[in-house]
Amino acid sequence: MSRFRDEIFEQPEAAERLIGGSGAQVGEIAAELRRRRLAGLVIAARGSSDHAATYAKYLFEIRNGIPVALAAPSAYTLYRRAPRLAGFGVIAVSQSGSSEDVIAVVDEGRRQGAPTVVITNSPGSPLAAAADHVLDLTAGAELSVPASKTYTSSLILLAMLSQALDPEKTFGAALAALSRAIRGMLALESELARAAEALQGPRLAVLGRGFNLATAQEVALKVMETCAVLAESRSVADFMHGPIAVVGPGFPVLLIEASGPTLNEMEALRGRLVAGGARTVVLTDIAEVPAHEAELVVRLACGLPEALTPIPFAVAGQLLALAMCDRLGLDPDRPPGLQKVTITR
Amino acid sequence: MSRFRDEIFEQPEAAERLIGGSGAQVGEIAAELRRRRLAGLVIAARGSSDHAATYAKYLFEIRNGIPVALAAPSAYTLYRRAPRLAGFGVIAVSQSGSSEDVIAVVDEGRRQGAPTVVITNSPGSPLAAAADHVLDLTAGAELSVPASKTYTSSLILLAMLSQALDPEKTFGAALAALSRAIRGMLALESELARAAEALQGPRLAVLGRGFNLATAQEVALKVMETCAVLAESRSVADFMHGPIAVVGPGFPVLLIEASGPTLNEMEALRGRLVAGGARTVVLTDIAEVPAHEAELVVRLACGLPEALTPIPFAVAGQLLALAMCDRLGLDPDRPPGLQKVTITR
Repeated sequence: MSRFRDEIFEQPEAAERLIGGSGAQVGEIAAELRRRRLAGLVIAARGSSDHAATYAKYLFEIRNGIPVALAAPSAYTLYRRAPRLAGFGVIAVSQSGSSEDVIAVVDEGRRQGAPTVVITNSPGSPLAAAADHVLDLTAGAELSVPASKTYTSSLILLAMLSQALDPEKTFGAALAALSRAIRGMLALESELARAAEALQGPRLAVLGRGFNLATAQEVALKVMETCAVLAESRSVADFMHGPIAVVGPGFPVLLIEASGPTLNEMEALRGRLVAGGARTVVLTDIAEVPAHEAELVVRLACGLPEALTPIPFAVAGQLLALAMCDRLGLDPDRPPGLQKVTITR
Repeated sequence: MSRFRDEIFEQPEAAERLIGGSGAQVGEIAAELRRRRLAGLVIAARGSSDHAATYAKYLFEIRNGIPVALAAPSAYTLYRRAPRLAGFGVIAVSQSGSSEDVIAVVDEGRRQGAPTVVITNSPGSPLAAAADHVLDLTAGAELSVPASKTYTSSLILLAMLSQALDPEKTFGAALAALSRAIRGMLALESELARAAEALQGPRLAVLGRGFNLATAQEVALKVMETCAVLAESRSVADFMHGPIAVVGPGFPVLLIEASGPTLNEMEALRGRLVAGGARTVVLTDIAEVPAHEAELVVRLACGLPEALTPIPFAVAGQLLALAMCDRLGLDPDRPPGLQKVTITR
């Protein structure tokens, strides 16, 4: 048994603790952001946290109507030509709070008078020290190199912030039901192991769209980190604009399909991939997805609005990557060439 | 001989025509954007044009100080919950001007009163009809499915717009020298064919940073489209936060290294990759790059400021992808599963 698996299984409790304990502070931050009448948000992050930033982009743009720019940190560090941030707020997401480039974006935001919010599992970190507001992931020490609980906890805090900015009753109730939804994913471990078998190979495409583009990115990264498989993640729309040319017969493709407005596009592409002989596996909360021949559907029943599905879906993806890694006999906790904390400039 | 190769070789003339003919119109658009005192820009694009958008992000943020958000088109189309664009300008880049999702972003920008600029090779397209301002790439018909001259022409118009917003003498002189720099790349065809040999395989990583992240993205897409190779493009910083775990001995990695502030980071990662046994090929304009054993350096001497190197570097990348495709005996003009115009929603 690995630390990675242990930490995956800690997620229901981590979610409960976070949702139960962070509401007041999230509410205060939302009140300040509202007062500032922001034109937009800049979000800085790396690695798994950058996929939380992708989630935040869809969440704040679609739920809150706020344009979101993902920071290009080199503008702040290597080029030393940060953009003018008047009218923007800055959010940084980092498990460790140590990466120099993410710190530089927050430093610059503060210097220019932008409100700055840091989401981190290390409230004593230099990143936390640089910000006006610190939201602690309270996930406990994460020791496996691939992130699991810090990723889902980052998504939860972002969802709480979005909800505090524009409260909605059903969304609030769904937030309260999140830890149960995560538990539901943990019960699917053996089904996800069968999906892992179908996806084995040196190459993989992982596709999503909208809110679950972030899930596709995060699952692809888990697979790259733990299995040394080259896993390309894309929105289905981007995939059709070129990368689909790589998919021949037998090429493994994982599709993350949530119920909601993106489903038709996902299904249309899936039909094309199946017709072309691709080996497709679908993770979805839809009850009625037809299982074509030579393909596997894992039902991730979670009863959540689409905007919250990336949280349990990421958990399913972690278990899938873990099963692929187990089949290869590799150690998920210590991927070659990686440390837990990566500092980039 | 392929249409793709013909169109690659048309790029010096296309650049000359564009730079000679578009200055006045670019100047008018820059004047309006300046008058509007924008807080930020939203850029919408797909496929190769989306890599031009990546270039624009670095260009407008670093040269002009304007924050840039790359549009998430599904917010505008599938979710029908576009963000508030007050204070933003909208730029769309599309060779064909036909993709519904890109049109939807421009439509929404105009509806909200944002200034809208379309960069397209199809001035009679629905996208062009939707915008306040249309910049014609004037590249002539592009018939091969993989884009070449429309990509570099998009970068040139973006560079001209950046220069018109914040004129700089050396940058202006370098723009005028661009077509000569592109011609210099065309002369390297046989050297790039040797690099192609070193990179052959079903998987490839293509790395850049800063301005040339766009080049890494575009070269990876060319390789995916023409060779059915799964090519992952990343900034070196993002690569170190996880994907590097995939690179074992013999894994082919292409590094795009421009002279400038990103060079140290690129070189540090390259040293790590070489030490780990990766098969590395470097495309660079640096004279003094040491060629380690088991690795190939192609010198792309172009004498340009870093911010303009993505234009000739993309041409070198096109020739590299073409050579990889030729070695595989594939037809670059008609990749399986792709049409010239892809319409996504």
